[in-house]
Amino acid sequence: MSDFGLSPHPSLLLTAVPNIPDIQPNDDLAGLILAALGAADLTVQTGDILAIAQKIISKAEGRLVNLTDVVPSERAEEVAAQVDKDPRLVELILAESDEISRMRPGVLVVRHKLGFTSANAGIDRSNVGAADGEERVLLLPVDPDASAQRIRQAICDRLGVDVGVIITDSHGRPFRLGTVGVAIGAAGLPALWDRRGEKDRYGYELQHTDVGVADEIAAAAGLLMGQAGEGLPVILLRGLKLPPSEGKAADLVRPKELDLYR
Amino acid sequence: MSDFGLSPHPSLLLTAVPNIPDIQPNDDLAGLILAALGAADLTVQTGDILAIAQKIISKAEGRLVNLTDVVPSERAEEVAAQVDKDPRLVELILAESDEISRMRPGVLVVRHKLGFTSANAGIDRSNVGAADGEERVLLLPVDPDASAQRIRQAICDRLGVDVGVIITDSHGRPFRLGTVGVAIGAAGLPALWDRRGEKDRYGYELQHTDVGVADEIAAAAGLLMGQAGEGLPVILLRGLKLPPSEGKAADLVRPKELDLYR
Repeated sequence: MSDFGLSPHPSLLLTAVPNIPDIQPNDDLAGLILAALGAADLTVQTGDILAIAQKIISKAEGRLVNLTDVVPSERAEEVAAQVDKDPRLVELILAESDEISRMRPGVLVVRHKLGFTSANAGIDRSNVGAADGEERVLLLPVDPDASAQRIRQAICDRLGVDVGVIITDSHGRPFRLGTVGVAIGAAGLPALWDRRGEKDRYGYELQHTDVGVADEIAAAAGLLMGQAGEGLPVILLRGLKLPPSEGKAADLVRPKELDLYR
Repeated sequence: MSDFGLSPHPSLLLTAVPNIPDIQPNDDLAGLILAALGAADLTVQTGDILAIAQKIISKAEGRLVNLTDVVPSERAEEVAAQVDKDPRLVELILAESDEISRMRPGVLVVRHKLGFTSANAGIDRSNVGAADGEERVLLLPVDPDASAQRIRQAICDRLGVDVGVIITDSHGRPFRLGTVGVAIGAAGLPALWDRRGEKDRYGYELQHTDVGVADEIAAAAGLLMGQAGEGLPVILLRGLKLPPSEGKAADLVRPKELDLYR
């Protein structure tokens, strides 16, 4: 693949890495991704970005929880009754959260300990695989920015290339219907890109000085991940020019006191 | 360009259409875009999606307003004093809006008549071009879904190909820092993609049943539009498989009474 895809014009190419295996706890995820890339005849280059679905990170990090092992607290029982959900699931949601943002029957929106606001603290049951009939759910990675950095570092160690990594999830959002891909982890790129001082074509300073570039990448990757029943968890993006940065997805969390949109 | 870019794997290729001229009121925008595509040796095919920056739609539709022509109302003067903005600009913002969502010095977030919540009703001064020293601002298109449909229809009429069109803007959002591309107009694609009933690889029903696919496309296009000081207003996207649909960006506006994220 050339730097600009097939075209002499500025372009971005997103490619789904095929045949990512079903990930198990303690799998060497970076190694498996590199093997899948190689088997598909895909290369990674410095400047490429890998967008990885949260689910396979969580699986590799052993974040599967068997609901039969969960004993709900009294508080979880109370909330579960109000939202009409499994008290064991609610116990896990509350343990992952700083505060409840909204609840009503069928809905439990919380502020996750990682800072973002989402339904069910990002815990879900789909794509977990329960052949034995046990009820497992998958929690988010403990520190997705660190997970992204580990994968970035492992790829650098093995191939000597400097890639960006983002870890994506799908969130609902205020004001607008439909879920979109968002970055819950990032490494090696300006997740929040400060463009202050840059001028537009007429010499005016750009008004939108901070761009949520990691979320835009996650949304772009979400388009392709969603093309196969969530079966495409790793997307390779080529062609995006970004300044070097040690940005993190945590940079994208808007401090409550600065939130003028709520 | 092949259907899947350079790769035998599922992929998306986004290409910036170069040399879009400075758009003037009443320009034939579809014609100018097709001419720029042709000059760049780019083709459009059925199934392609064109993402077009709101600014050039607004310019073609004559939505430039000279601030010297605006007489602020008493209400606009009051609000302007509170938010420390030009009363004439505030007059335009209020005229474009249903309600004020939040105000404080320097900040005026409103619910636009089109349904979305954004700073300054999407009105901005950058990229407008005021060589004569006059102060012009650019309002959003009156009906961006209709604008998208007109461009889609014009391309169909001239080339016989069936493309999707989205009109994009950059919005800030609650909970998260940084602006991201969002779809304020759409035609010829499921802007809000209802995936209910689809199963994941383990046979579980997908939990996120409604995907904000037009916003994901807008975010992806935003990555590339942002690569050149807002000088790349038209992006051609190839490779996305979507069901036929007469979706609109208005489908993405979350009714207030369903908004559990606020």
